[in-house]
Amino acid sequence: MSAILQETSKRADWVLGIDIGGSGSRAALEPVSGGAGGAGGAGAAVGTRHLFEAEPVSISPNGSSALPVIASLIERVRAERPDAALAGVGIGATGLASLVVSPAASLASLSASAGAPVALAIDAVTAHLGALGGSAGAVVAVGTGSIAIGTDFRDVWRRVGGWGHLYDDRGSGAWIGIEGLKAAIQTHDGVTTDAPALLSAAVSRFGPAPTWPSQLYTRDDRGAVLAGFAADVAGLASVGDDVATRIMATAGALVAGTLAAALDPALPARAAGVGGVFASGAAFTAAFAEAFARIAPDATLVEPAGGPLDGAVELARLVAADEVVAAHPPFIWR
Amino acid sequence: MSAILQETSKRADWVLGIDIGGSGSRAALEPVSGGAGGAGGAGAAVGTRHLFEAEPVSISPNGSSALPVIASLIERVRAERPDAALAGVGIGATGLASLVVSPAASLASLSASAGAPVALAIDAVTAHLGALGGSAGAVVAVGTGSIAIGTDFRDVWRRVGGWGHLYDDRGSGAWIGIEGLKAAIQTHDGVTTDAPALLSAAVSRFGPAPTWPSQLYTRDDRGAVLAGFAADVAGLASVGDDVATRIMATAGALVAGTLAAALDPALPARAAGVGGVFASGAAFTAAFAEAFARIAPDATLVEPAGGPLDGAVELARLVAADEVVAAHPPFIWR
Repeated sequence: MSAILQETSKRADWVLGIDIGGSGSRAALEPVSGGAGGAGGAGAAVGTRHLFEAEPVSISPNGSSALPVIASLIERVRAERPDAALAGVGIGATGLASLVVSPAASLASLSASAGAPVALAIDAVTAHLGALGGSAGAVVAVGTGSIAIGTDFRDVWRRVGGWGHLYDDRGSGAWIGIEGLKAAIQTHDGVTTDAPALLSAAVSRFGPAPTWPSQLYTRDDRGAVLAGFAADVAGLASVGDDVATRIMATAGALVAGTLAAALDPALPARAAGVGGVFASGAAFTAAFAEAFARIAPDATLVEPAGGPLDGAVELARLVAADEVVAAHPPFIWR
Repeated sequence: MSAILQETSKRADWVLGIDIGGSGSRAALEPVSGGAGGAGGAGAAVGTRHLFEAEPVSISPNGSSALPVIASLIERVRAERPDAALAGVGIGATGLASLVVSPAASLASLSASAGAPVALAIDAVTAHLGALGGSAGAVVAVGTGSIAIGTDFRDVWRRVGGWGHLYDDRGSGAWIGIEGLKAAIQTHDGVTTDAPALLSAAVSRFGPAPTWPSQLYTRDDRGAVLAGFAADVAGLASVGDDVATRIMATAGALVAGTLAAALDPALPARAAGVGGVFASGAAFTAAFAEAFARIAPDATLVEPAGGPLDGAVELARLVAADEVVAAHPPFIWR
């Protein structure tokens, strides 16, 4: 690959990062020289970033639409910016490991279409690259789901969580939504009396309680529907509702436990939390910080340097520079 | 209806009870006189009972197969026992309220096919009729799901639970399975270390942990799959595993709370618990009895007189005797 890069060094001076998500997909085209070089690079080249937006990934009984969405984004960037020859492409996508039959098999065609080497990663890996700028440590990403990755992108790959709302993803948006609905239905049924505001919020969102099962059990995107209710739970916590506050605080503590478990002893004790639930309010963030300090007293919690799109660009730079980003399914495919 | 019964009194001297379940369906044909007459009748006429077995109900995107299964069972009984003219038919079926579009609309054709009046009820109602023999009180039925009904079959109809594994059915087989998988995945991920036996049991049943999501999230019968794992949790509790014992004991206490909440103050304080989870061992039953005595100290817990098929026969007797079994959707359709 180094030989190829040398041959085309005059032209291939752009990198492309792609973030494929459940609520939207984006690509960022940047000069390869702008802020490249590992730690600190992510998010540094926003001034010369060209953004492309695309539809979210959709999940059907036939699988995930991630690969077609990626392919069409690459085509679009190539068509709209024929001058911008690519040195590397980094892609982060949700649900890759469990919902795309063979991520590795599609690399050759994506690479041919891009005219550059491609690395494909699960979104938790690009979240890590964006938050810690390519350096080693642990990052937890908390949106609809919750997953932590502890890695140095070489030898250590520790995954905690991310197994879905049914028996995992503790502290995630879906988890918060489920806990809110549990409190609501128990108040509806007269098992408890302590969550009238959550019951009222659930009725406002979903309608009368007897209609909830037909809305939740029939939908393939029930995790996202549940996570939608998390916004109501967070809103009630922010105005002091007791049960909602307890749910958000428990979520924060659980996420801290997930992050701490990803801090492999072989990694530097640096950690960060990213994702929408970290913007849900003080009940969550205060409990998260308190619990993390208690569980991992020797670790440093850092502010994330960037988001998953920054991480995808960082991955593209690592690929373009031929730095070590080993294939490591089900985390990264090269 | 009384006039019709008098006209046909020489012929219509049989009752038919039908129980449509997720793991099998059954019909019981009995003489109308055998043990009839409300309380104490259920289960009294086993000696003269003729049993018919049929397939379980299946759930597809098109809905439930409950009504076709019921119709074919009635046809079979009529064909095999043309001498047994029916005075009444009582049917209990799982998922009627939420999965059958219009239970009431099918009553006329079922009644024409049976040549007798028909009452159709959710399975929690026939569980109640079987357990308390038609008398008033509260009954909780705990299998894959968990639902309690407090009723006098006239004025009071209180339902608690039964809203499914996602945010309810606390203490049910599905709930126990989820709690077991939560402990297993947290041990797998290194969040905790305390459930190696549950992890080992889950791997034996489902295979390596990374394969669990593709088995659980793609199946329409995930509640039943989860409840299957409850048997492993109960087995580990019976040999003293700490985490499994704690899960089963918590399940028992939650079921007691569900049952107590169904004891409307207007009902006599009599209650019973039925369903497979009550046969899961002492960890569950001891915690259930202890918690119920604490939550509802003035209520009497009675041994169930019979099961849901007995309850369906009881419902058929009430219908045949023209006793008050008012239509009360979504509990009973007449």
